[in-house]
Amino acid sequence: MNAVDKFASLLTLTREPFPASTKGAITGSRPDLRVPVRDVRLTNGECVSLYDTSGPYTDPSVEIDVRRGLPGVREAWIAERGDTESYEGRIHKAIDDGATHADRDAQRIAELRAGAASLQRTPRRAKSGANVTQMHYARRGIVTPEMEYVALRENGRREWMAEYMADAAREKRLAGNPMGASIPKIITPEFVRDEVARGRAIIPANINHPEVEPMAIGRNFKVKINANIGNSAVTSSIEEEVEKLVWAIRWGADNVMDLSTGRNIHTTRDWIVRNSPVPIGTVPIYQALEKVGGVAEDLTWEIYRDTLIEQAEQGVDYFTIHAGLRLPFIHLTANRRTGIVSRGGSIMAKWCIAHHKESFLYTHFEDICDIMKAYDVSFSLGDGLRPGCASDANDEAQFAELRTLGELTQIAWKHDVQTMIEGPGHVPMHLVQANMDEQLKHCHEAPFYTLGPLTIDIAPGYDHIASAIGAAMIGWFGTAMLCYVTPKEHLGLPDRDDVKQGIIAYKIAAHAADVAKGHPGARARDDALSQARFDFRWQDQFNLGLDPDTAREFHDETLPKDSSKVAHFCSMCGPKFCSMKITQEVREYAAQKGLDEGAAVEAGMAGKSAEFKAGGGEIYIPVKPVV
Amino acid sequence: MNAVDKFASLLTLTREPFPASTKGAITGSRPDLRVPVRDVRLTNGECVSLYDTSGPYTDPSVEIDVRRGLPGVREAWIAERGDTESYEGRIHKAIDDGATHADRDAQRIAELRAGAASLQRTPRRAKSGANVTQMHYARRGIVTPEMEYVALRENGRREWMAEYMADAAREKRLAGNPMGASIPKIITPEFVRDEVARGRAIIPANINHPEVEPMAIGRNFKVKINANIGNSAVTSSIEEEVEKLVWAIRWGADNVMDLSTGRNIHTTRDWIVRNSPVPIGTVPIYQALEKVGGVAEDLTWEIYRDTLIEQAEQGVDYFTIHAGLRLPFIHLTANRRTGIVSRGGSIMAKWCIAHHKESFLYTHFEDICDIMKAYDVSFSLGDGLRPGCASDANDEAQFAELRTLGELTQIAWKHDVQTMIEGPGHVPMHLVQANMDEQLKHCHEAPFYTLGPLTIDIAPGYDHIASAIGAAMIGWFGTAMLCYVTPKEHLGLPDRDDVKQGIIAYKIAAHAADVAKGHPGARARDDALSQARFDFRWQDQFNLGLDPDTAREFHDETLPKDSSKVAHFCSMCGPKFCSMKITQEVREYAAQKGLDEGAAVEAGMAGKSAEFKAGGGEIYIPVKPVV
Repeated sequence: MNAVDKFASLLTLTREPFPASTKGAITGSRPDLRVPVRDVRLTNGECVSLYDTSGPYTDPSVEIDVRRGLPGVREAWIAERGDTESYEGRIHKAIDDGATHADRDAQRIAELRAGAASLQRTPRRAKSGANVTQMHYARRGIVTPEMEYVALRENGRREWMAEYMADAAREKRLAGNPMGASIPKIITPEFVRDEVARGRAIIPANINHPEVEPMAIGRNFKVKINANIGNSAVTSSIEEEVEKLVWAIRWGADNVMDLSTGRNIHTTRDWIVRNSPVPIGTVPIYQALEKVGGVAEDLTWEIYRDTLIEQAEQGVDYFTIHAGLRLPFIHLTANRRTGIVSRGGSIMAKWCIAHHKESFLYTHFEDICDIMKAYDVSFSLGDGLRPGCASDANDEAQFAELRTLGELTQIAWKHDVQTMIEGPGHVPMHLVQANMDEQLKHCHEAPFYTLGPLTIDIAPGYDHIASAIGAAMIGWFGTAMLCYVTPKEHLGLPDRDDVKQGIIAYKIAAHAADVAKGHPGARARDDALSQARFDFRWQDQFNLGLDPDTAREFHDETLPKDSSKVAHFCSMCGPKFCSMKITQEVREYAAQKGLDEGAAVEAGMAGKSAEFKAGGGEIYIPVKPVV
Repeated sequence: MNAVDKFASLLTLTREPFPASTKGAITGSRPDLRVPVRDVRLTNGECVSLYDTSGPYTDPSVEIDVRRGLPGVREAWIAERGDTESYEGRIHKAIDDGATHADRDAQRIAELRAGAASLQRTPRRAKSGANVTQMHYARRGIVTPEMEYVALRENGRREWMAEYMADAAREKRLAGNPMGASIPKIITPEFVRDEVARGRAIIPANINHPEVEPMAIGRNFKVKINANIGNSAVTSSIEEEVEKLVWAIRWGADNVMDLSTGRNIHTTRDWIVRNSPVPIGTVPIYQALEKVGGVAEDLTWEIYRDTLIEQAEQGVDYFTIHAGLRLPFIHLTANRRTGIVSRGGSIMAKWCIAHHKESFLYTHFEDICDIMKAYDVSFSLGDGLRPGCASDANDEAQFAELRTLGELTQIAWKHDVQTMIEGPGHVPMHLVQANMDEQLKHCHEAPFYTLGPLTIDIAPGYDHIASAIGAAMIGWFGTAMLCYVTPKEHLGLPDRDDVKQGIIAYKIAAHAADVAKGHPGARARDDALSQARFDFRWQDQFNLGLDPDTAREFHDETLPKDSSKVAHFCSMCGPKFCSMKITQEVREYAAQKGLDEGAAVEAGMAGKSAEFKAGGGEIYIPVKPVV
């Protein structure tokens, strides 16, 4: 595709459903509580139902207008609680879109905003004295619709999984090792409530983001992944910006962070939040820095506070806040090989040094909590001192900050503010477990949210792989959400394909962790795909994979004909000899002779070989084998 | 590139050296013992020296004629030992190239062979009663040149690494966890001898493959990787077949397995072995099956034996032999989800069932040992019953075979035949460690050689990633060599790019394992690259990576100008704000004020902030930072 075609194709949203897939729903205790699933029809009549992050975009029956935004699935729930009020809200300023330093852009910005003015909502906030966080409800014993939604979503449709989990001996052999997690067989709404109440899980769901399809981040739930997107250097259209989101959730991003900088970030954020069925996170210090012309030392608490309110009113679900990077820790980085690599962390370090003052994020932490609980914005406590290379891993700077994040977690919880903790970064394999252990020890089981970690530093261009290794491991050990890394990490800005590559690598890591932890039903999809592979149901094998398009394309390269999609052989051994065919023969022979135990086989086979050999030729392979 | 251009470009070998790299050599105790290294010149004057698998192909000063083959670096060493004799060898038969079933091909085969007749060598074998294995020498206390070569190769040039390992506190913090391995600080030739003598390492080096640059596979050496190649459906030229090898070793394959089937495999193997500086492995049963027209039950010990001799005379360094798949184990696979997925395993299973006889590989195992020791071919004892999906992992079929491989190892060692053990396959993360533990327990520390393992089954198209996770982990736990998986696994035949993708993913896994185990110096390359990253030495960052071409290309996509290769910022934050620049400021400030301890910083910084702020502006970043 040339650049022009590519650009043109990006102006429309990716809306086609996955192959053989339809949008289904699991309905909860009230008719407006409908949890989406992707139902995949297999060629043998089975239906496999998958966790679905893609929102209404993959449902062709839904009409979507990005200039109006998605329907607010949570609107009634929020209203019913009666503890919020709508209010005029903060007045939009030109500076929110970075106009100060380039007044020539003001006109363009005004045009952009006018073009999607219908996306601007009247904000809500907690009524005076109220606290509208999911944690607050949970601690008062209230099971919210959001909690029930999460429970149904985590369970999925268990019916189809049962068949694949019926063999007790197999299940025992493959029983996961939860590494200290407490994963129940069935997730109940009450279990979700309890997890949220004790801070072990969060449900990022700003009351100003009613469009969100609730999801949970916690050690006893499925491991989630986050994808980062950013605005374009030259914002061309709302469709182009929203398409980045649609593309990321299509491939499985459970959360998306909008890391936009520069121009038009307020307006772009309106576009994204209004059209996002997944929680949106941001790093508010990025926008605050834009407002002071990129000069870190000019930042003030007032500007930062105003930015938090601005974004909370828009509906951002969680804020990365680097409040654990304290003045006394900064010098601990002086002997590092790569110093401070977190952007937010280095902004605050520069501010602290310039003013020789404790970070205003730390000194104003309770003020921040007051904002968070008025909108139910969750904390993602940032690791500004995370290592930037393997040789800086697990050092005192990193762990001093982590311990502080633990202290801040307890302050946040005093306010019933939902909180997760960000983690590294760059960590060799043998030091990964210590990160999880320290986090559990100091942060009281608040969900851990790590960036990778990258296990080695010598793979520029392939850091999605170098980090998927660390991500899978730390996910198994207890990390609740994995922030993806793309192949462009350290080198440049990811394009559409890089985003997909990063997401798929992280879906692999998260799923590997779920299987290792023994999440009930997690392995069923693997089993369904492996069974399809064994049965030579090629289409089912593709369609059950993380990326059906690529799997099909790869198969077509070697055996392009349609007929080979039902061939009882593959390109590896070809039609003459096929190990799977031979297995069928082994199995049929054993079944035919009633053999299934060691001694019996030895005895039963004696003298039968001639008979078998005489039978000769290739045995027909049924689509559904004798199990 | 269109298909025609692509084809044309494959007719020449990939010979350009890596960027900024020259072929160096570490000379041993004799002038003809020269261990190749890749010396990478950095822009700051440093020289980083890397383990080099690429052979003479990346040395532009060497003239290579694939129709004559590489020089025999070991020729003199083999001759000096005086325990081998050249002999006329087995007579080539048309059937060796699959001509039986297609006599029309005989003419074409004859042409192909004539075209590279100069690659046919007079074979050598052990003199009557002699044993020419490296293990045999080792057990008699002889340090061979091959062993010294391996020692020098494993150590590399330690001088440049020292600088990166000088900080004792850092080294202590990052100290690897060898998981039971016994890795010395310096590998001596005597250590290599001892490892080979006790069977904990092998040096695959057939006396008929003098071209091989010796390397070791063992738990106390760097983790190695294997790439598989196969002949083309229509063999077009010697250059095309050899290029596959050259391409694989360019990107880091330590070993290559030739898994050719069908036509011309004898001749293709001549081409590959004569031009290969890395050990070549094969699965002889594949060729034996071709000789009986693909009918497994028609296989005989005599045909198999003849094939072993044929390949041993050509110089194959190790044979995968599925001798542990015994008749009584076959029924254990009947209830598996995907049965027997090993091609060699299923061939033997079919034979055993058809004849109701114990496998001839098992009953003739000592006869096979007699062949192996006459040429120093190493065993790679195949895991014919490896699991083909996660749900078949770690079952009784798999472990019954593994225990048998342990018994066979002791028989092989009785004959002083070098032996490694093949392992899975498909294993969820939490069951990976048990595979290593069982292998160590039952196979007496013989090197483990695993295929991945793949940690999940739902990633067709991305199985190089799904398996790199398992490979990194099992490499850390003690696996000595990792067989790569390409993105095409389960779907089709890998092309040139797939081979590269698979190799890079496995270099990542192997290096992650080396770093985790704490191989001396393994982390130095990471440190050198991270330092280059911090110093904004972009070219050095690319050139120290596993794939400089891709890293450079990715950077160019975002910042294409040459000047940005020396820019003191990157595309992530842009020139205005850069976290690495701020780190420099932190560091310079700390250094300037003589601050380096907690309390001192607190005290020393007081009142200095105004001074710092007044200094203002962006501080020049030296190429070599103040450490």
